[in-house]
Amino acid sequence: MSNVIVIYHSGYGHTKKQAEAVAEGAKADLIAIDANGDITEADWLKLEVAKAIIFGSPTYMGSVSWQFKKFADASSKAWFTQKWKNKIFAGFTNSASLNGDKFSTIQYFITLAMQHSGVWVGTGLLPASTKAAKRDDTNSLGGFSGALMATPSDATVEEVNKGDLETAKLLGVRVAEFANKI
Amino acid sequence: MSNVIVIYHSGYGHTKKQAEAVAEGAKADLIAIDANGDITEADWLKLEVAKAIIFGSPTYMGSVSWQFKKFADASSKAWFTQKWKNKIFAGFTNSASLNGDKFSTIQYFITLAMQHSGVWVGTGLLPASTKAAKRDDTNSLGGFSGALMATPSDATVEEVNKGDLETAKLLGVRVAEFANKI
Amino acid sequence: MSNVIVIYHSGYGHTKKQAEAVAEGAKADLIAIDANGDITEADWLKLEVAKAIIFGSPTYMGSVSWQFKKFADASSKAWFTQKWKNKIFAGFTNSASLNGDKFSTIQYFITLAMQHSGVWVGTGLLPASTKAAKRDDTNSLGGFSGALMATPSDATVEEVNKGDLETAKLLGVRVAEFANKI
Amino acid sequence: MSNVIVIYHSGYGHTKKQAEAVAEGAKADLIAIDANGDITEADWLKLEVAKAIIFGSPTYMGSVSWQFKKFADASSKAWFTQKWKNKIFAGFTNSASLNGDKFSTIQYFITLAMQHSGVWVGTGLLPASTKAAKRDDTNSLGGFSGALMATPSDATVEEVNKGDLETAKLLGVRVAEFANKI
Repeated sequence: MSNVIVIYHSGYGHTKKQAEAVAEGAKADLIAIDANGDITEADWLKLEVAKAIIFGSPTYMGSVSWQFKKFADASSKAWFTQKWKNKIFAGFTNSASLNGDKFSTIQYFITLAMQHSGVWVGTGLLPASTKAAKRDDTNSLGGFSGALMATPSDATVEEVNKGDLETAKLLGVRVAEFANKI
Repeated sequence: MSNVIVIYHSGYGHTKKQAEAVAEGAKADLIAIDANGDITEADWLKLEVAKAIIFGSPTYMGSVSWQFKKFADASSKAWFTQKWKNKIFAGFTNSASLNGDKFSTIQYFITLAMQHSGVWVGTGLLPASTKAAKRDDTNSLGGFSGALMATPSDATVEEVNKGDLETAKLLGVRVAEFANKI
Repeated sequence: MSNVIVIYHSGYGHTKKQAEAVAEGAKADLIAIDANGDITEADWLKLEVAKAIIFGSPTYMGSVSWQFKKFADASSKAWFTQKWKNKIFAGFTNSASLNGDKFSTIQYFITLAMQHSGVWVGTGLLPASTKAAKRDDTNSLGGFSGALMATPSDATVEEVNKGDLETAKLLGVRVAEFANKI
Repeated sequence: MSNVIVIYHSGYGHTKKQAEAVAEGAKADLIAIDANGDITEADWLKLEVAKAIIFGSPTYMGSVSWQFKKFADASSKAWFTQKWKNKIFAGFTNSASLNGDKFSTIQYFITLAMQHSGVWVGTGLLPASTKAAKRDDTNSLGGFSGALMATPSDATVEEVNKGDLETAKLLGVRVAEFANKI
């Protein structure tokens, strides 16, 4: 079992692709929050023993999906006894617009991690933002607090952006490094 | 039927008290989001014809309750056709800590309202923050973007703070004024 | 004199272009915050009598420039006596990355406006976020709470994005409509 | 020389008290940003070699003071070459209201730290929020992402809250622990 867990909700499969890229980078185990916002008892135990937890959710109507929020609310049980204290946390999100309100989702992930007395790690990546930059470049959206992905509203799961997937993977690599250090 | 709607979720009844105070100030109709995050078709219609919509939720784990978020996600249907465009929006929240992460909840309400192309109205109140200030004073917490209430974690529904209720009521009064103006 | 004021800081001229587009849409007067973060006494009077105030700043290191913040801090004088109460407020920002932390800047503008007991108006625009969308489309970045512009780090002032300028202009048009209504 | 630096701006001395409490907890060196928003070349070097940097600022008009922001903007030089990469970061703020918009200031600190590819550490403290809680208790305001202090608008520097100072000190202790670990 890995000491890094990627826990995410995906509505249509695009965020799942992003989660898999993060997990590949971190050599992490994946936990999918189901369509009803639930995870299993075994999943809660995995989170409890992990060194790092990476949150993932689409940005729906300006923040995490309700299913992710249901998971977050249920984590109040772990909060009361501070079971996740000092773990490493990070996050990623996907939505249709290039900017949209993705940053709002990342801010929420951080707020949640801080209630759990965690340590927050961002992408550690400079942006690709010159005139020569292409969307397929790493961190072409310019995400620092978390990994960002923009998938056009009519794109299939297979059409998610390669550069955004690479960015997601690099976030995973970075989190794994910190998980092994602390 | 009123042209102002207070739509809220309350887990244990404290936020309901706050919602009632806002509704009293605004002479608004109340819609309670149920424990499963749902409202009725009739409720959606009420929201569609309202001039102003006031959001309310406890702050759970750093943002709105998942039930409120489920409502927000369901409002994407109204978003696609911009049915709530140009309506007045405002918000309120309750949690145990004096500060806590209440501001995060209010920020989310604003982000949601802006996606709906709404107009955001805050409390319009100066804070009571001198040495002589008491918790029962109006806006003793110092909320500007929305109305704040702090209820100790072991307080009953009847023990919610009088000053915070008055603050909530005044937010309602203010929203109603704008609803009649626009 | 117009009843709408666009007050902005621009470090290198790109945000100035955006400010001019907003002002064109709103038929607004422009106030430029200088390199030392100052405006004139006459400027403060213009702000006092305006019906709407539109904030603009580049996003530097994750929020408004220090020059804009110096103006914001100086507005505490207007705050004490709530001279800007009930005015319409809106905002816009420019930075190099597509996403970057522009949303953080817009959030700050809103927070400032709410302390001044203002009313916040966003873009009122749906995003251009399908596969067919181009950067020159209106609101191709997907800004709701405020108007966003992304200018590559090595682009000249003349190379700012046409679609982002149009988005800025439409924000101005929208604010002017509300200024005339309230 | 300590491996932890507390860098802060204080307008009237209250935030300075808080900074000193944090520094005591972390056995940190203090750097005061001056009234013009500047620090010395020697200060920049200290920041460069530190293992942890703790940001402090009053909350003025909804975010950090312009002097702090001027420092933040000047840190873009360190950003370009990612000189602060992987350092530990934390933050604290003081303002008059119990809630006010302190969270906005803390959010900004985090956003800045993430651009610098840092690691964010919060208070790691549960709130004192039962009916029996007193303002002098540790973390009676309920700050998780950073340490909060509320000082009435007419309180002298000597009258800052003892519990808030203790909270500040504990943040310092926590940061020092992480600085020694990484």
